[in-house]
Amino acid sequence: MSRKDNTRAVAIVGVGDTRFGKQEGTGISPLAVSAARDALVDAGLEAKALEAIYVGNFCGEVLTGDALLGSLIANRLGITGVPAIRMEGACASGGLSVQAAIQAVRYGMVDTAMAIGVEKMTSQTTGVTTQALASAGDQAREMSAGATFPSLFGMIARAHMARYGTTREQIAAVSVKNRKYGALNPRAHFQAEVELNQVIESRPIADPLRLLDCPPISDGAAAVIVTTLERALDLVSDRAVNVAGTGQASGPVALSDAKDITQLEAPRAAAQRAYADAGLSAGDMQVVEVHDCFSISEILAIEALGIVPEGEGGVATHSGFTAGQGGPLVNSSGGLLSKGHPIGATGTSQVVELVRHLRGEAQYQAFGASTVGLAYNMGGAGAVATVTILERN
Amino acid sequence: MSRKDNTRAVAIVGVGDTRFGKQEGTGISPLAVSAARDALVDAGLEAKALEAIYVGNFCGEVLTGDALLGSLIANRLGITGVPAIRMEGACASGGLSVQAAIQAVRYGMVDTAMAIGVEKMTSQTTGVTTQALASAGDQAREMSAGATFPSLFGMIARAHMARYGTTREQIAAVSVKNRKYGALNPRAHFQAEVELNQVIESRPIADPLRLLDCPPISDGAAAVIVTTLERALDLVSDRAVNVAGTGQASGPVALSDAKDITQLEAPRAAAQRAYADAGLSAGDMQVVEVHDCFSISEILAIEALGIVPEGEGGVATHSGFTAGQGGPLVNSSGGLLSKGHPIGATGTSQVVELVRHLRGEAQYQAFGASTVGLAYNMGGAGAVATVTILERN
Repeated sequence: MSRKDNTRAVAIVGVGDTRFGKQEGTGISPLAVSAARDALVDAGLEAKALEAIYVGNFCGEVLTGDALLGSLIANRLGITGVPAIRMEGACASGGLSVQAAIQAVRYGMVDTAMAIGVEKMTSQTTGVTTQALASAGDQAREMSAGATFPSLFGMIARAHMARYGTTREQIAAVSVKNRKYGALNPRAHFQAEVELNQVIESRPIADPLRLLDCPPISDGAAAVIVTTLERALDLVSDRAVNVAGTGQASGPVALSDAKDITQLEAPRAAAQRAYADAGLSAGDMQVVEVHDCFSISEILAIEALGIVPEGEGGVATHSGFTAGQGGPLVNSSGGLLSKGHPIGATGTSQVVELVRHLRGEAQYQAFGASTVGLAYNMGGAGAVATVTILERN
Repeated sequence: MSRKDNTRAVAIVGVGDTRFGKQEGTGISPLAVSAARDALVDAGLEAKALEAIYVGNFCGEVLTGDALLGSLIANRLGITGVPAIRMEGACASGGLSVQAAIQAVRYGMVDTAMAIGVEKMTSQTTGVTTQALASAGDQAREMSAGATFPSLFGMIARAHMARYGTTREQIAAVSVKNRKYGALNPRAHFQAEVELNQVIESRPIADPLRLLDCPPISDGAAAVIVTTLERALDLVSDRAVNVAGTGQASGPVALSDAKDITQLEAPRAAAQRAYADAGLSAGDMQVVEVHDCFSISEILAIEALGIVPEGEGGVATHSGFTAGQGGPLVNSSGGLLSKGHPIGATGTSQVVELVRHLRGEAQYQAFGASTVGLAYNMGGAGAVATVTILERN
């Protein structure tokens, strides 16, 4: 990969995570520290090597009573003095923190940085957690009128079906595929396959979406260490994974402000920027982790990323194209639907899974060797998006 | 100012804010947008000139039900597509957002960026707001045992008195000074002077701190636009204010982890880094906005910044040294104690006030012309600190 600007080449040298799911008897800090320590071991680094820490967390204030997680997690890792910042962009908080760490190294602010994504969601009642999730929407104009994320994505699904002829079976095929992959992932929240008719006949949530079209409420953490490519090669040799390019964009928080609810703008803009930054295109991607916050979201995602043309996400999924049959492998980790969706950890975890895949260390993602892939994380219903392209060294 | 590295020279070209205080009938977004639009007018820029937005907000999820404020405020300003990120470091959220905007321009990520700090604190009951404020402490180890920020700073005050012989009168002199200045500031929450004995005899909050040793609960917003020095001079000529240097550090969240509760580490480290970055020293500072979250905090602040030696903050305040009688002018805006403390807005507002002072536009800060000053913002009890040094062009 050649850089068009005079920034530095950056690589990922360490990744770590916890299992996603209900984690009894542990708090938000121990989860984050566990993932961070695993990443340090993976990189062969001491915590004191970290010059900046970026913590992706959505809603610690409400879910566990914790703000200031940058400093808190730095403290628990035994380091003080370094910049340690919590970044929030709802479900894209993890992606934002990974890109902040990448930019800090790329632009020469620091040589080594860590991104940590974490969320502890099961400490509160479902009512409190649901209310917290709604804070990622437009309170004044939509959520206060009773909208919820399942209902917003239910409308998106209905619109996609009406406009492109996408079928209920095609949407359910996303859940079937991701549950199949998640069943192989030892860190996934759900490790059981489901059949198409089970998805379609599961409990209604927000028509046409059913329970098995939705992700679980999970606890979890994930961490990524980035450094200069030069230092990365010294540290971990060919286990270093290059950052080929990044893209980030914001978009409407209110779904009613979207120009087209079936084709969200921010994810498309983020993808185009990342491809341009990397000098690569959608056709180059061999393995892809996308933000399937609902089954319909993965269909929107592969269209926004340019992996399939507009409106063809449903057909492509049902045909097996996104299961490596002609197309890239999409969400071979199990995705949010099966691996789980601890909000602030999700974007970081996507990068962790992608790194493992590119290194050939994700044996559960048993589909041969890939050399290039991307992770796409979204906040709200298209309110913020990050796309990070990685390449095996 | 000469840069030691090869980064770009950065200047502030626009500032804006709302009055601090109880703002009835308005939400968090309108407050932020009002400050942002004023900053755009001040800079002579359209919103579409902004290439990145950093929003400092502490606890929107709890206080107004709003997360994702980066995207939300960008939307309300009529721009989408740009990176728009909410950053949180408790009471230093505003300082973090200003420094993120500065770094983004300095290191060449973008040419023009805006930092917006905002908090809407009066929408909830005092109980909910107090609980939210406690989320900036160490929940697991201190706050769950009943600690509150007034009680933590009460302990700090008591320790400072015991160790250095600091008197109740000296501590109260901070409130007297800042209320005097705030009475002149048309945007301040409190605009009435107080006498020493009124402070000392006000309602006990956490011994020895009394009501008039504490800041009010305020709503408010502030915004700062940064760009390259070259572009700044084109835009606003000699109204551009140079960023001479920045420093940032994290420290213990739990007060019980501080090596010395009268001499917090992170503020000292942030100040040392900022002075080194600017090639300036404490003695060069003519006007200083510091984080007086309680009266005792200003005494700690001027010691941490090296404006007075350790232990002499009380004497210096009582003598008038920090009212420009021999020393720099400290908190001539009124500080948090008088101007108010809408958490996420505070650090941004400090920079706004400093810019106005250096430009000679803060007639209420009627103390002649200064050319160099700093803003020091702190989160928690020393958990995070930012120091930003500005110089008149």
